[in-house]
Amino acid sequence: MSLLLAMTGWHIEDWRARFQALLPDMPVVVLGEPFDRRAVHYVASWKHPPGSLTGLPNLAAIFSLGAGVDFLFADDKLPAAPIARIVDPDLTTRMSEYIVLHCLIYLRQQRRYDRQQREALWDDDRNQPAARAVRVGVMGLGELGQDAARKLAIIGFDVAGWSRSPKTIEGLQTFSGEDGMKAFLARTDILVSLLPLTPDTRGIINAELLSGLAQDGRLGGPFLINAGRGGLQVADDILAALDAGTLKGATLDVFETEPLPVDSALWSHLGVTVTPHNSAMSEPEAIATAVAQQIGRLEAGEPLLNLVDPERGY
Amino acid sequence: MSLLLAMTGWHIEDWRARFQALLPDMPVVVLGEPFDRRAVHYVASWKHPPGSLTGLPNLAAIFSLGAGVDFLFADDKLPAAPIARIVDPDLTTRMSEYIVLHCLIYLRQQRRYDRQQREALWDDDRNQPAARAVRVGVMGLGELGQDAARKLAIIGFDVAGWSRSPKTIEGLQTFSGEDGMKAFLARTDILVSLLPLTPDTRGIINAELLSGLAQDGRLGGPFLINAGRGGLQVADDILAALDAGTLKGATLDVFETEPLPVDSALWSHLGVTVTPHNSAMSEPEAIATAVAQQIGRLEAGEPLLNLVDPERGY
Ligand SMILES: NC(=O)c1ccc[n+]([C@@H]2O[C@H](COP(=O)([O-])OP(=O)(O)OC[C@H]3O[C@@H](n4cnc5c(N)ncnc54)[C@H](OP(=O)(O)O)[C@@H]3O)[C@@H](O)[C@H]2O)c1
Ligand SMILES: NC(=O)c1ccc[n+]([C@@H]2O[C@H](COP(=O)([O-])OP(=O)(O)OC[C@H]3O[C@@H](n4cnc5c(N)ncnc54)[C@H](OP(=O)(O)O)[C@@H]3O)[C@@H](O)[C@H]2O)c1
Repeated sequence: MSLLLAMTGWHIEDWRARFQALLPDMPVVVLGEPFDRRAVHYVASWKHPPGSLTGLPNLAAIFSLGAGVDFLFADDKLPAAPIARIVDPDLTTRMSEYIVLHCLIYLRQQRRYDRQQREALWDDDRNQPAARAVRVGVMGLGELGQDAARKLAIIGFDVAGWSRSPKTIEGLQTFSGEDGMKAFLARTDILVSLLPLTPDTRGIINAELLSGLAQDGRLGGPFLINAGRGGLQVADDILAALDAGTLKGATLDVFETEPLPVDSALWSHLGVTVTPHNSAMSEPEAIATAVAQQIGRLEAGEPLLNLVDPERGY
Repeated sequence: MSLLLAMTGWHIEDWRARFQALLPDMPVVVLGEPFDRRAVHYVASWKHPPGSLTGLPNLAAIFSLGAGVDFLFADDKLPAAPIARIVDPDLTTRMSEYIVLHCLIYLRQQRRYDRQQREALWDDDRNQPAARAVRVGVMGLGELGQDAARKLAIIGFDVAGWSRSPKTIEGLQTFSGEDGMKAFLARTDILVSLLPLTPDTRGIINAELLSGLAQDGRLGGPFLINAGRGGLQVADDILAALDAGTLKGATLDVFETEPLPVDSALWSHLGVTVTPHNSAMSEPEAIATAVAQQIGRLEAGEPLLNLVDPERGY
């Protein structure tokens, strides 16, 4: 019985060492070297090459090494085993650091004060709104969205959230589904996207959505923060809205192509803040431990945690 | 019985109108025009010209129009009336926005990512510490310091505080007095100053204090955020520590001379972030309302709230 590691972009031998230390009795094999395909019971993947997980007759579970699973469903030869993903309080906390930081940069006009400093200009703003006068809308109210929404509310923002299914969350105004979208956007000054990438959400941050955001807010126009997945956004629509002035700024941690190509207009647009998909780096030790615990659960006959629904795609 | 307004830097007629609306039966007079000095029972001041409040035989109370009162005690002819200051939840919330923002900018290396963006450089940091691995030390645990400390802890930081008198605050490691200072500084990666300016605290942020900050932290060296008063800091010592590399960055909202003179080296130093003393702008309406309520309390024979102790100077 073995664990197969399959990844691109990460240092696979480090991961093998990590897993082998946690699972001393289980052979840990890696894609690219010869291994017994019938012995593979578990796969741990981060962006495995599509098609590379076929021919594993005894596969019992696939573990995503991240919180997202869109890269798994992008493989149309993915075997039909149960899929579990990472839910890690450390990752959640880091994402909320990022979301609170970028909402506060917009609220407190930090880009403006940076510019003024370069000009040695002392100019305050007697109309600086307090957080309670600024409406943040969080798209996606899962593990990440709920934590971010809670912390934004504690800082003082007027927070609402939007999800697929209706939700009741104390202290949070909630909207859901296509029916709830228009009202949600119309009361949003800062839109935070923490959605998973699925067939339903691909390209959701487009011209139509952006045109529905509040134009009457205290920040003088709406802002966008996307830390979900690059496939959620239509970059050209974001740039067009910035140029038209209907969007005042965008902070993007994720992109359709990563690393973001050097010739992308996003790098140099003054209205865009780019971060290199590191809003919530998971700690490798924590991820490996979580996967090892899941394997322990299966071996003990317990159900997997954090299962993904292939129908919904998240 | 009248209220005398005394201020510099603010638009006094706006304040007169505000107070007159709230206190329709009380004459509101302003410094610089003729008025009956014996009729003045109350003074509301923001940086009144020193010596201008003498000869008010029936003065019953002096109201600072800000949270700080150092400008009052800087007037050695200040009459010996009870002094009350502003404590306003709106102001407190705004200060915490600022403190959380600037702690997160340092934690998440936002200056680095801004630079990388200008170079179209995609480079993440696999060693990014989580907030819990970064120790914030809040100097001053009054109205502002306690709220900031609580919110920083919710974001995830490892927070401690330092005050004059010993304190027990749930979830917060506390230090006090000169005896507690060394240990407090030694565990501090980001030092937040929310102290009042008094004879005891003037120049407290000097070379000696800075040299006591942690050099072994996860951020690669300590950072400073001062939003108390400019007189707390020795600007030359901060610049020297930055140049020596024993301080990694400083965010300053307050300065010995304000507006910060254009030839100050603070403006252009790459390690310094300057904001124009607007970390926590109070809303004029809220301030005027609070003062009017205090006058109402005195007229009803109730004690003043938020009294200042002239012995301590805050
Ligand atoms: N940038 C990074 O470094 C980074 C790091 C980690 C994760 N992420 C991204 O963040 C995403 C969210 O993570 P999570 O752990 O919070 O996921 P989660 O717990 O599965 O929550 C997903 C949320 O999105 C909502 N949602 C899904 N499809 C929707 C639709 N069509 N319309 C409206 N709402 C929809 C869900 O609604 P219901 O509640 O109704 O199901 C749920 O509230 C991940 O999928 C990943 O792509 C990014
Ligand atoms: N930048 C801005 O826009 C802005 C806006 C508002 C206020 N402020 C500044 O912020 C300051 C603090 O406001 P606040 O409302 O929090 O004041 P506060 O409630 O009076 O609290 C002052 C705190 O400082 C501590 N302290 C005073 N002297 C000390 C000393 N010698 N050693 C150690 N600790 C000492 C006090 O200790 P104890 O608890 O033991 O008394 C208390 O914890 C104001 O005085 C003002 O200067 C700045």
